[in-house]
Amino acid sequence: MTVCVSRCYIAARNGMNPKREGLTQTMILNSDGRGFGLVFLCLLLLPKLTTAQQLTLNLTPMPVSVQAGTGSLRVDSSFSVALAGHTEPRLERAVERFLQQLARQTALPLSLKPAKTPQATLIIRTDHASKEIEEVDEDESYVLEVSTAGAKLTAPTPLGAVHGLQTFLQLVDISPDGFAAAAVAIQDKPRFPWRGLMIDSARHFIPVEVIRRNLDGMEAVKMNVFHWHLSENQGFRAESKRLPKLHELGSDGLYYTQEEIRDLIAYARDRGIRVVPEFDLPGHSTAWFVGHPELASGPGPYQIERRWGVFDPAFDPTSERTYRFLDEFIGEMAKLFPDQFFHVGGDEVNGKQWDANQQIQEFMRAHGIKNNQALQAYFNKRLQAVVEKHGKSMIGWDEILDPSLPKDITIQSWRGPASLAAAAKQGYRGLLSNGYYLDLGWPAARHYAVDPMSGDAANLSPEEKQRILGGESCMWSEYVNAENVDSRIWPRNAAIAERLWSPEEVHDPASMYTRLDSISARLEWLGLTHRTYYRRMLQRIAGSAATPDEFTALRTLTDLVEPVKDYTRQQTALAEATSLTPMNRVVDAVPLESDTGRRFGELVDKFVSTSCLDAEIEARLRTHLLLWRDNDAKLQPLAQRSLLVQEVAGRSQDLSALASAGLSALHAVSKRQPAPDTWKVQQFAIMEQLKKPKAQLLLIPIPAVQKLVEAAASGGACVGAKQ
Amino acid sequence: MTVCVSRCYIAARNGMNPKREGLTQTMILNSDGRGFGLVFLCLLLLPKLTTAQQLTLNLTPMPVSVQAGTGSLRVDSSFSVALAGHTEPRLERAVERFLQQLARQTALPLSLKPAKTPQATLIIRTDHASKEIEEVDEDESYVLEVSTAGAKLTAPTPLGAVHGLQTFLQLVDISPDGFAAAAVAIQDKPRFPWRGLMIDSARHFIPVEVIRRNLDGMEAVKMNVFHWHLSENQGFRAESKRLPKLHELGSDGLYYTQEEIRDLIAYARDRGIRVVPEFDLPGHSTAWFVGHPELASGPGPYQIERRWGVFDPAFDPTSERTYRFLDEFIGEMAKLFPDQFFHVGGDEVNGKQWDANQQIQEFMRAHGIKNNQALQAYFNKRLQAVVEKHGKSMIGWDEILDPSLPKDITIQSWRGPASLAAAAKQGYRGLLSNGYYLDLGWPAARHYAVDPMSGDAANLSPEEKQRILGGESCMWSEYVNAENVDSRIWPRNAAIAERLWSPEEVHDPASMYTRLDSISARLEWLGLTHRTYYRRMLQRIAGSAATPDEFTALRTLTDLVEPVKDYTRQQTALAEATSLTPMNRVVDAVPLESDTGRRFGELVDKFVSTSCLDAEIEARLRTHLLLWRDNDAKLQPLAQRSLLVQEVAGRSQDLSALASAGLSALHAVSKRQPAPDTWKVQQFAIMEQLKKPKAQLLLIPIPAVQKLVEAAASGGACVGAKQ
Repeated sequence: MTVCVSRCYIAARNGMNPKREGLTQTMILNSDGRGFGLVFLCLLLLPKLTTAQQLTLNLTPMPVSVQAGTGSLRVDSSFSVALAGHTEPRLERAVERFLQQLARQTALPLSLKPAKTPQATLIIRTDHASKEIEEVDEDESYVLEVSTAGAKLTAPTPLGAVHGLQTFLQLVDISPDGFAAAAVAIQDKPRFPWRGLMIDSARHFIPVEVIRRNLDGMEAVKMNVFHWHLSENQGFRAESKRLPKLHELGSDGLYYTQEEIRDLIAYARDRGIRVVPEFDLPGHSTAWFVGHPELASGPGPYQIERRWGVFDPAFDPTSERTYRFLDEFIGEMAKLFPDQFFHVGGDEVNGKQWDANQQIQEFMRAHGIKNNQALQAYFNKRLQAVVEKHGKSMIGWDEILDPSLPKDITIQSWRGPASLAAAAKQGYRGLLSNGYYLDLGWPAARHYAVDPMSGDAANLSPEEKQRILGGESCMWSEYVNAENVDSRIWPRNAAIAERLWSPEEVHDPASMYTRLDSISARLEWLGLTHRTYYRRMLQRIAGSAATPDEFTALRTLTDLVEPVKDYTRQQTALAEATSLTPMNRVVDAVPLESDTGRRFGELVDKFVSTSCLDAEIEARLRTHLLLWRDNDAKLQPLAQRSLLVQEVAGRSQDLSALASAGLSALHAVSKRQPAPDTWKVQQFAIMEQLKKPKAQLLLIPIPAVQKLVEAAASGGACVGAKQ
Repeated sequence: MTVCVSRCYIAARNGMNPKREGLTQTMILNSDGRGFGLVFLCLLLLPKLTTAQQLTLNLTPMPVSVQAGTGSLRVDSSFSVALAGHTEPRLERAVERFLQQLARQTALPLSLKPAKTPQATLIIRTDHASKEIEEVDEDESYVLEVSTAGAKLTAPTPLGAVHGLQTFLQLVDISPDGFAAAAVAIQDKPRFPWRGLMIDSARHFIPVEVIRRNLDGMEAVKMNVFHWHLSENQGFRAESKRLPKLHELGSDGLYYTQEEIRDLIAYARDRGIRVVPEFDLPGHSTAWFVGHPELASGPGPYQIERRWGVFDPAFDPTSERTYRFLDEFIGEMAKLFPDQFFHVGGDEVNGKQWDANQQIQEFMRAHGIKNNQALQAYFNKRLQAVVEKHGKSMIGWDEILDPSLPKDITIQSWRGPASLAAAAKQGYRGLLSNGYYLDLGWPAARHYAVDPMSGDAANLSPEEKQRILGGESCMWSEYVNAENVDSRIWPRNAAIAERLWSPEEVHDPASMYTRLDSISARLEWLGLTHRTYYRRMLQRIAGSAATPDEFTALRTLTDLVEPVKDYTRQQTALAEATSLTPMNRVVDAVPLESDTGRRFGELVDKFVSTSCLDAEIEARLRTHLLLWRDNDAKLQPLAQRSLLVQEVAGRSQDLSALASAGLSALHAVSKRQPAPDTWKVQQFAIMEQLKKPKAQLLLIPIPAVQKLVEAAASGGACVGAKQ
């Protein structure tokens, strides 16, 4: 045995010996039994020295319980999957999808069909079918056991099986012995039954293939609701056969056909994902009125809105015509979308058309409706009756909450956790979206820290807590389109997915970030373009005459900036953006969270925590800062040739200035005595200037450099405690 | 005017002034007439200072004649295209495709339909229709005139129009004033009428969507023949309705349906591309015999071949059954593939089955057939009659050339230019493929230097020269699959495309490489994955637990290696590769030509040409070498965790050793006196060791480091002359 171990060790180590290299190579690459010989034997006998640890497993979302086993399960081209217990075509498709994905991850030539025999590497035992139409609160649990001999996935229904297969895919990784899945016993189920992603495909149309690959991404991180925002001032995106003027006149020809919608729903169902459509009423509705001005509260005609913001047009809640129309429309859509829930929007009605309409004002007086809020509550009550008539349960944004509405409605909170808790107290079910708006450009860690059960919700009774169904991340699309939308959703959405699936106690941002890198790479196998879009967009900005060095300089800058946050993009715009504005600027191209900036910040924190004594970190910081300081000189020639680079020339100078400040701080730190106050004041003044957005971009390493300045000002050694 | 110029200048320069920045931004991004004001006026009045120069235009292939105009044509969202003269649906689709591509390149929201009015930014005037089935030697010329006021594209037929649109797309680039096309007058037509790419989709099946995006790439570089290698020992890839056992038993289920084939032909025709099918006969034919063993010259049964190489199975040329079968098969395929040419392969028949078959030997004696070559000529004569019967002209590899065959056949030379010239002398038409084999891993410059009219062909008479129709690059697929095939074709194929289109005098490799970078970036907009595949494959190799620094270290190494060249991949393999071998190793992932390695070589050449006196270049070389020397230490931890990285651990050490030698040479050079001979001998001995392939990889910077060593040995100053 000792001999065998050491031979294996040598074979695995020594790439320079042809004979042994040959063995190693065969071992990785073949599984047809030819040429395994000694090494394969070794693999069978060799006791594994490492054991899987929960936090070294790159699983996102982290399962409820992970017990490390011994060794790992070899994954080679003989890998097979068998279905035991309940089977159905959806499960077979899930297995084929799984095998395809495994083949993509590993490049192993796998047979892509479930095995016919009960003997297989992975055996899936499903107890019974799930509901014909997926419901909230179905059992999604699964148990996954992996040993050196094989793997077993057990789940009550196909929903759990689908989730467990994703966990298995994340376990498979290259190891010193080839591809393998760590031996492990996992018991898992979601913390919340509603884990959604909303995509606004109304403001900018998002083609169906883009939605599809995002559903693949959702499956990978176990999200189970796709909330499809289908109507807006800027577009009506679903085909209506009964009321065709809606999509014909309200969409610029950019809409989903009913066939596409049905296909997408089936695609989602395969992945354990419900599809909840949203048709926003009574505001956010200009696009409806292009074809149906008679439904509005103000005189037409209407045109598709091109600007962003909250606009006046709103349905006339006092006209019976409105309800007859909605009855017909919702009747049609209720058949198209099988889900139990029907989202009616309900947000941001500014009431101006109501105020200006004589008839509406008379109606309010006649019916004792005191204000616009009450008028919207009246509308919602009527609307709820229509929705219920067609067999659906109404869901809407905060604004639909009114004690006069039945408890059957569900509130999606965009305003904050307080309104969610208040709704739960009043007996309404609710979802949190406040804190999960992907378009606001927050770092993943900030979303990750938002918990539906925090704040007021923490003090709810168990029964009230039950009413908090979960949450939804929201991808509003003022500044995204097919080209960059994946990058605005991923990988940050995976952090939200973990928040909604994993136990509350899983909340270490450092672990999350490590695993986020890994899941982000894995998501690429699904065809998501959240990484590949970037260079392409930068190439457009740089132009085809950019030299490789110039392109690198551009990338160095853009890797360190982020678009302005929250709602400041609109405010910092120097020319008003519309739905027709090209999205080809640096602000459209850079990721919403700068990895390079974050890592530099971590490095500075580490340096400061050593009381600035770690010479190796200091050297690394200096290398970064020198590169950044000198980058502007490399970039400026390109800025002279490309207007899109020219726009960020100022930020490039800023980066240089910031790096100079950082270098000056490093220099001061190395003297190990407090730098003069005048110097500190000067540096901080520079930094304050740099903090201002320019070209709608923020320079990300500023806080880290500020820490260096502070360290320098205090003489380095004393600042460790400040952390 | 002066005031206006300087204001524009300031507006374009000063990114820090919000007001001016706003104007700049509007100018780039909008064309709806809002907010243009002063700046737009300036743009109209501002005389352009730069004039377009032929060699600064990033056009590939370079047109026959390019005359620089003054200024450039603004390309914004008002851009439109009108069709004048002859129109047909194919032209309208070409315009839509062009507009879509322009929108992708610029992210401008363009209207994607041809304009209804004769007023448009670009007016296309086509004289008449091209042939219903595209023929060799049709007029593909076009004239493109771009001025500040508009653009005009004139072409005899849609073929020229399609080519001219691609030239226009390459003219559009970001400029100091936004997107623009340089003012220019271009007259253009191809040097050769046959400019092909062959893809072998038989050895490894290449999915139809991969073929499709490669046709897009061909259109971009004006190639006009897709040669589809559809049958091999390893697979029969076309559906036959009359003889379904061919694809049912010969393809592992991986074949193209007739509907897919028809769609692809239409797709190609839209792009001015002919599709020539190849069914390889009488050798390379094992896959046919799985379903039809009765056609072979040896006893069956047969199985799909998994190994690579030349194998014994061959059609029985003495049996009438063979010709009846081929008559039926070719009859069916001749209808499916409309092109005039039908490729019958004909290469590499080893004759072993013929030698061993008693009946065949008797037949040869009875008919006075002296040897196997003569037997194959007999087969080809019979085959040619079948091909002709079905209205096609036969084309095949070198081996079909025999004086007994009619002059109507065409020879594709894989053996060399001599055989091509010999064929032309004998009255046969021919194509060059020798020198254009993309799978051999040559640098683009080497393919670029191969000319169909060089060698013996240069001495042919004008009439004989006419018979040389052009050439074809060949992508044989032993070591490519859907994941990496784009990267094996592009961008190098663009250099071959230029060789076949542009005048013979266009042959400067430096210019070619500059433009290759640019076309490579543009090809990404077509969905080609020749750049994006790389990181994904490296991620698989590194595993998801690799840290960012480790991943960078892997990339640093892999950027400096290339797979072994020519046919040595087979020879250096330590375990025999088959069609089922996973292609997940570094050798499968790295590009076939290392840009980093090439650029380092150029830098060394430049350094040496300054007699090693340029301190800035010296510093840059040192930076590279230090990074490489220290890279191995960063990579080794990852090699311990990933078997796929472990395989290249030896090469990583080699890179470190090479860089140390380079640093030692730089150090010696800086002393400016000849380094001792013993040192030189020692360094060269190291280099000789490093030249040996390891893990089937070559270390690319070796010759460049050798030059440094030589420079050091001669004291630096004297080696400039050696260049």
